[in-house]
Amino acid sequence: MAKPTPLSGFPEWLPDGRIVEQHVLDTLRHTFELHGFAGIETRAVEPLDQLLRKGETSKEVYLLSRLQEEPGQGSDKQLGLHFDLTVPFARYVLENSGRIAFPFRRYQIQKVWRGERPQEGRFREFVQADIDIVGAGELPYHFEVEAPLVMAEALGALREIGLPPVRILVNNRKVAEGFYRGIGLEDVEGVLRQIDKLDKIGPEKVSELLVTECGATEDQAKACLALAAISGSDVGVVAEVRALAESHGAVTELLETGLTELGALVEAAARRAPGVVVADLKIARGLDYYTGSVYETVLVGHEQLGSVCSGGRYDTLASDGKNTYPGVGLSIGVSRLVSRLLSAGLAEATRSVPSAVLVAVVSEERRAASDAVASALRARGIPVEVAPSAAKFGKQIKYADRRGIPFVWFPGAPGEDGTVGPDQVKDIRSGDQVDAEAATWQPPSGDLWPRVVPRG
Amino acid sequence: MAKPTPLSGFPEWLPDGRIVEQHVLDTLRHTFELHGFAGIETRAVEPLDQLLRKGETSKEVYLLSRLQEEPGQGSDKQLGLHFDLTVPFARYVLENSGRIAFPFRRYQIQKVWRGERPQEGRFREFVQADIDIVGAGELPYHFEVEAPLVMAEALGALREIGLPPVRILVNNRKVAEGFYRGIGLEDVEGVLRQIDKLDKIGPEKVSELLVTECGATEDQAKACLALAAISGSDVGVVAEVRALAESHGAVTELLETGLTELGALVEAAARRAPGVVVADLKIARGLDYYTGSVYETVLVGHEQLGSVCSGGRYDTLASDGKNTYPGVGLSIGVSRLVSRLLSAGLAEATRSVPSAVLVAVVSEERRAASDAVASALRARGIPVEVAPSAAKFGKQIKYADRRGIPFVWFPGAPGEDGTVGPDQVKDIRSGDQVDAEAATWQPPSGDLWPRVVPRG
Repeated sequence: MAKPTPLSGFPEWLPDGRIVEQHVLDTLRHTFELHGFAGIETRAVEPLDQLLRKGETSKEVYLLSRLQEEPGQGSDKQLGLHFDLTVPFARYVLENSGRIAFPFRRYQIQKVWRGERPQEGRFREFVQADIDIVGAGELPYHFEVEAPLVMAEALGALREIGLPPVRILVNNRKVAEGFYRGIGLEDVEGVLRQIDKLDKIGPEKVSELLVTECGATEDQAKACLALAAISGSDVGVVAEVRALAESHGAVTELLETGLTELGALVEAAARRAPGVVVADLKIARGLDYYTGSVYETVLVGHEQLGSVCSGGRYDTLASDGKNTYPGVGLSIGVSRLVSRLLSAGLAEATRSVPSAVLVAVVSEERRAASDAVASALRARGIPVEVAPSAAKFGKQIKYADRRGIPFVWFPGAPGEDGTVGPDQVKDIRSGDQVDAEAATWQPPSGDLWPRVVPRG
Repeated sequence: MAKPTPLSGFPEWLPDGRIVEQHVLDTLRHTFELHGFAGIETRAVEPLDQLLRKGETSKEVYLLSRLQEEPGQGSDKQLGLHFDLTVPFARYVLENSGRIAFPFRRYQIQKVWRGERPQEGRFREFVQADIDIVGAGELPYHFEVEAPLVMAEALGALREIGLPPVRILVNNRKVAEGFYRGIGLEDVEGVLRQIDKLDKIGPEKVSELLVTECGATEDQAKACLALAAISGSDVGVVAEVRALAESHGAVTELLETGLTELGALVEAAARRAPGVVVADLKIARGLDYYTGSVYETVLVGHEQLGSVCSGGRYDTLASDGKNTYPGVGLSIGVSRLVSRLLSAGLAEATRSVPSAVLVAVVSEERRAASDAVASALRARGIPVEVAPSAAKFGKQIKYADRRGIPFVWFPGAPGEDGTVGPDQVKDIRSGDQVDAEAATWQPPSGDLWPRVVPRG
């Protein structure tokens, strides 16, 4: 077999990179669980008709087939790999609606697959970390305030390993829709689709498209752009939108509802996560199932990477005809975050293996003595490996050094008179070597497990 | 959308079942890391030619195709989902051979997919947890002793949640091959294939097949069955095999090498994991790439479930023509274990959500006070959620009760004179209710997080 080459769009990390990723995953999970979200996993596959239910052909679904189809099994449903965790979660909620308690708070951290053209920060296989809160029949607005604040806390907890601060941009569909209808534009979806292009093509081109594609007058287009230009991290933004709407005689009940909600979110965010949440009236999010708050998140200083955490409120996450399940949630693009942390050299692991200690082997005949030391240390929770061979100590120390293992343990060897000398442990960074007993020795707590730290 | 139904062979757990699975995964990971194994993940897909390299058509590979193939992309390699973690690991080792240090100790916990007919304990999508040690050019025998002992410790750590004890059955290919050649049988693979059927079809049928399929005489077949009948957990087993070989004039150098190795494994296991490892000379393992030790593991009392942890030594895990990488490893069938733990009612979670505390909401106007309590508790590492609505306290307590949340927190309410009374916390199991402060109150450590316990 020739040396294989990586597959574009299917990232894999070396062991030290995986330690960074694992730390990110552990931190997210811990934060989600502190907030009472229950973890679930769903299968990787869904029936194709479910995957395409929302017309999501743009996600480039991967279809499955079997190399050897069994006879009479051809009627199996066509299956595809899930391209997000929302579609599977909606199916899971319906399938288990009688067995889960609502409102249901769940997190889900899994790989998803999209056959898109790979590029910087866009993969064909990547990890998402989602939280959602789903209700049966109803879901109070305060969950739309809570969900982004949980994500702010989760992403904020990663700052200590070198993740840049995040900015969560929020908007409310009711504000946009209420405003557009108030100024006489009925094609709300169409207008949102054009506004969504602002960052890419700029206000002039968007203005043209609003006129040619959405039937807006020049004045209506101008009003839409004026709304989209409003942003801010305090409740002043609400007054600003209202003033703009009043100047166009465009204050509607829907707009007022949306402004009340947006104001509550901005106000709570200013108190609970100061400086993180910004109301940005141009955030549109393409997906037409959002019905209230919408969220996007950028890494400050890495805005061109795109959103690393997006989501919103949907009045119909799932429905089985009898019951409707509204939900609100956000999804972190974990692989996008981790690949930036690694490629931009923002974070690194203090070593590439779990072991804090390498127990040296004096001779193969005395390997059992080294195994016994290792067992005694592990019994007290210290990660340890035993040297692969009874090579010269210099070579054994080099084995530890290559992996970043900070300590090498030398079991006491029998002297000429037959008495066994004391064990010794060497900190190979400082060269300090001291007598030690496996039953009591403890590494400094910062050396016990590999840590992830900002790269100097 | 009608109520969806589960897909056969693609298991999913409810939140309390997922807590059991997560505990199993955490325990395995912790044990592997204590032994210095570095975690990696590989992509879910491999080129089809790699997946079929060992002629593994029996694994029923799932092939991938894209719903919308881009023009000019038809030359993409045909991809399939991996059916184990060994093939991807071998590819990873070759791809990164210049960037990893050998011997390389890695664990890998991921889903794999096989399009087989689903049955009890056999799934189409399931989680495997593998450890392997791979060397560059050489790999000393002592790793063949170490690997199953790490698994014995990992599986042993699950006994406290209700997993039955395990029995690891070991054999050595060199013993079998040396013996067969010693009695004059050259078709070693063929004989192993028939011996592998012993448990299914019994010794008489196997004897017939050895004669008809492998060209054995009646005496040779009898000798093979006599070897297969030997088992034991101490070094006596080595003497027994040697005596049998001597009685057939079948002592070969290869047999002696194999017996030395097997004896060392049994001896070390008796010391380090008493009663767990049993030499069983009928263990054959179908795969023809094993070249030394082979392992299978049964749950005591659940033998009919099949092996829950298998593996062995392979002299050529990977090779790029220039270098050869020998390895030894085992793979735990995590989904098989977890599904048995759940379906046989062996283990259960103490609650279905992470939250230790539900903070009640006195009125929607005072929700911020409840949020503040929750934040204060979380800041001290206590998992908390806030009640979804300001319903009557009885209903809020019921919300906690349905999820198994042990404590409900009542923020102090302003009295008629405007002063705010003290917060109180109620243990809803005992009904005890006491004054408490969010800055200092601590739940009993056993209640902090959901635990997994044997089912009474």
